[in-house]
Amino acid sequence: MCELLGMSANVPTDICFSFTGLMQRGGLTGPHRDGWGIAFYEDRGCRIFHDPAPSADSEVARLIQRYSIKSRNVICHIRQGTHGPVTLENTHPFQRELWGRPWAFAHNGRLRGVRRWPMRHYRPIGNTDSEYAFCWLLGELRERFPRPPRRRETAWRYLRQLCARLQEQGTFNMLLSDGQVLHTYCSTHLHWLTRCAPFGEARLRDAEVCVDFAEVTTPDDVVTVIATQPLTDNEVWSPIRAGEMIVFEGGRPRRVEPGARGAITPLPLHHPRHGGVTR
Amino acid sequence: MCELLGMSANVPTDICFSFTGLMQRGGLTGPHRDGWGIAFYEDRGCRIFHDPAPSADSEVARLIQRYSIKSRNVICHIRQGTHGPVTLENTHPFQRELWGRPWAFAHNGRLRGVRRWPMRHYRPIGNTDSEYAFCWLLGELRERFPRPPRRRETAWRYLRQLCARLQEQGTFNMLLSDGQVLHTYCSTHLHWLTRCAPFGEARLRDAEVCVDFAEVTTPDDVVTVIATQPLTDNEVWSPIRAGEMIVFEGGRPRRVEPGARGAITPLPLHHPRHGGVTR
Repeated sequence: MCELLGMSANVPTDICFSFTGLMQRGGLTGPHRDGWGIAFYEDRGCRIFHDPAPSADSEVARLIQRYSIKSRNVICHIRQGTHGPVTLENTHPFQRELWGRPWAFAHNGRLRGVRRWPMRHYRPIGNTDSEYAFCWLLGELRERFPRPPRRRETAWRYLRQLCARLQEQGTFNMLLSDGQVLHTYCSTHLHWLTRCAPFGEARLRDAEVCVDFAEVTTPDDVVTVIATQPLTDNEVWSPIRAGEMIVFEGGRPRRVEPGARGAITPLPLHHPRHGGVTR
Repeated sequence: MCELLGMSANVPTDICFSFTGLMQRGGLTGPHRDGWGIAFYEDRGCRIFHDPAPSADSEVARLIQRYSIKSRNVICHIRQGTHGPVTLENTHPFQRELWGRPWAFAHNGRLRGVRRWPMRHYRPIGNTDSEYAFCWLLGELRERFPRPPRRRETAWRYLRQLCARLQEQGTFNMLLSDGQVLHTYCSTHLHWLTRCAPFGEARLRDAEVCVDFAEVTTPDDVVTVIATQPLTDNEVWSPIRAGEMIVFEGGRPRRVEPGARGAITPLPLHHPRHGGVTR
């Protein structure tokens, strides 16, 4: 299994705190020694750092902790390989261009049979089932919508159908972004929380690190973190249910209900330190 | 204008020495303050580091100098923007997947009108003429060869025609790689040299740095460096002629002659310290 980490925020925000926690699991407090990667969106651009070395002793990981790149959308993945050797080309997040935007994708789980599915527009470079799933997903989306649909909710609903199809092949927890929103789909494990005013202290599970977000935020900041397992032990994380797709934009979640005309339901934010609905 | 740097080698080699020289031109000894990027191929995989900050004071550049990633094919670019604002999405090298391989591209020069050309398979994410040229080039290649041609020389000849077409729009010096070979096309300025046994000392033009390659190589190493302007002042660099395409593989150059059946001519290696043909 691998671990996923995503962030969606309404202002460019660094992910140093959550990243520090996750990186410990890459060979130190967790068994995820098979490389890691992180994608940061900055406006229309996206930069991805990949490292096939374990994250806990990665030079690149230390750079990211120190350098604090600020972004509204982030996707991070640490890998414990189940399929395909540990090589750079098998390291998530994967990236392809669709509709003149860089899409990034990371996946947790195992999918049977997808490597025999027909690939329309995108070919995998490595040999993981994850990259095949991504190429298939984006290819189907492009086949149905050669240009972006007038209403992007139309694409979200179709994406949800494609994700459900992938889930039938095994386990499909994913993070997918085009730089505007962060699409999440859960088949077994994904948790999220939203930090917003009044901000307080958070304490990592995996390292002796605390941060008081009140000191590093403004009252209007809304920052949602999505992770396979909760990263802190003094905040309340919400699980995403099996088969559920939530799209985050500027930190705010909307659930995509099933069906070609499924509703797009804004979800309330639960304050992570007392669990109550804040707005 | 921008500066290009490429490397083609028969063994995984670090580019720290040449990179150190080039980075000085990014805001210190040169005016290229508008970001930089570098693509390293490792087998089928490719990782690109992008930084919109000037290279001479870039955290990421310091990482690359320290961390010494070894690669057989490298493409690097520092930018002095002529078209398009300084943003991450306008930072070279650009990357797209074709035939299940990650292609990376960097360009020096200005091209008129290409942004009005039809784009078939690849859409630009930013707004530089360079990225438009890359998307057009790769799209045309894919249109002609939906699968890789049986003989890759067939693709090289077609690429040469496409490059000549782009050159008609202005200045087109480029580095393009699929991870197997490094394609170069020169319209005004590109120089190369090949370091091979007997190795000797090289001295950078732009920094007080010398290296004795005899100490860091084995006798079978063949390492070719391609750059807009020579990076060292005690070695002989060969210019690539206007309208010439040279494809480097494992450090060894082959010139692609014009025409649909143009010859592919292996070029002799000139020893950089005395200019004589070595093999």
